[in-house]
Amino acid sequence: MAEYSFYTNPMSRGQIARWALHEAGADYEQVLVDYGPDQPEAFVKANPMRKFPTLVHHHMSENGGTHDHVVTEAAAICHYLAEMHPGADLLPGAHEKADYFRYFFFAAGPVEQAVITNTMGWSTQDPQKQVMLGFGSYDRLVDTLEQMLTGRDYVCGDRFTMADVYVGSHAIWGIDFDTLPKHDAFITYAERLKKRPAYIEARKIDADLSAESASAPG
Amino acid sequence: MAEYSFYTNPMSRGQIARWALHEAGADYEQVLVDYGPDQPEAFVKANPMRKFPTLVHHHMSENGGTHDHVVTEAAAICHYLAEMHPGADLLPGAHEKADYFRYFFFAAGPVEQAVITNTMGWSTQDPQKQVMLGFGSYDRLVDTLEQMLTGRDYVCGDRFTMADVYVGSHAIWGIDFDTLPKHDAFITYAERLKKRPAYIEARKIDADLSAESASAPG
Repeated sequence: MAEYSFYTNPMSRGQIARWALHEAGADYEQVLVDYGPDQPEAFVKANPMRKFPTLVHHHMSENGGTHDHVVTEAAAICHYLAEMHPGADLLPGAHEKADYFRYFFFAAGPVEQAVITNTMGWSTQDPQKQVMLGFGSYDRLVDTLEQMLTGRDYVCGDRFTMADVYVGSHAIWGIDFDTLPKHDAFITYAERLKKRPAYIEARKIDADLSAESASAPG
Repeated sequence: MAEYSFYTNPMSRGQIARWALHEAGADYEQVLVDYGPDQPEAFVKANPMRKFPTLVHHHMSENGGTHDHVVTEAAAICHYLAEMHPGADLLPGAHEKADYFRYFFFAAGPVEQAVITNTMGWSTQDPQKQVMLGFGSYDRLVDTLEQMLTGRDYVCGDRFTMADVYVGSHAIWGIDFDTLPKHDAFITYAERLKKRPAYIEARKIDADLSAESASAPG
């Protein structure tokens, strides 16, 4: 049995988790799941939200037994894998923790929310709303993200960490799907990350699966 | 100089970070900041989003110098404080990490987003939208959160960790401000957390500051 069962769909946020699995060098078995009602029982039990990605870690304990640990949320899966595979050197050092966790939660909260709100066409022009919204407004979020990514190669400065898989996925998707403006700071960061061998490997698997699925007889 | 500078407003998500500071037993100096344009330069420089809470950690290095580390995002601040104060025993053990990070990111992403979307009155009825939205729909989010909090006293089972400060704040706010339905699982969890001495201390400071501000001559 592989160490992880990875429930995903190639055209979902599961792409982020697959990249993280490859960066960590994790031994995983993928379980492809469709949107729609016929989903495997083990998946629905693990994640009642029925959202991808969902990871089940078959954690070996010291006495040889295994504990199954469920992790959902792409960001949580990324960081969890960094913790479980310290040899891959994806965790922050003492002076990198502030940036690492700040950027991770900034991307999982305000960035995700601002991009979705903007894509949905929901208006945030009302100043009263902007006080309540954690991201203020889409424009304010984009300006802040641009400042945060200017003058550094990676989240923690000059060293790649797992935070770049998650924050970088937002930059890559933002540029590729036009959900972020084409600012230099986003393009440069996205291009830098797309050269990672683990990104290239993981992306190819999902691209091939998407192509197969598109050409399969309906 | 205190170890942390804590930029906050008593009627903001800064309440979450103050509770975390008290759980960690951290030595902090508060800097009260108003909404509006006249904000201190150090605050705007630390957080160009100009959102509360913002924490600056004056981190002592081994040679006696200090590095200033900025942490924004209430969730990141909570976890960062747990990391910096291991003696407070707020970090997860090996078998608690899956739940700890899953719930932390679930609250910072889907819960925050679903509650805000619902409060704003933005519609998520369209099934196509539900595929794109990380939280699916408000009802699906509430059902999942209810399942996740049923049958356990805390995020990690029977032991309080820093994840409870953040997830618990969502439960407490949800019940107190009617942004979550009054399900037993939410009420019981919120009531349990409101008995924490650190919550009581922190809450009193913000309540007193809010009362002073309300009675101050305009």
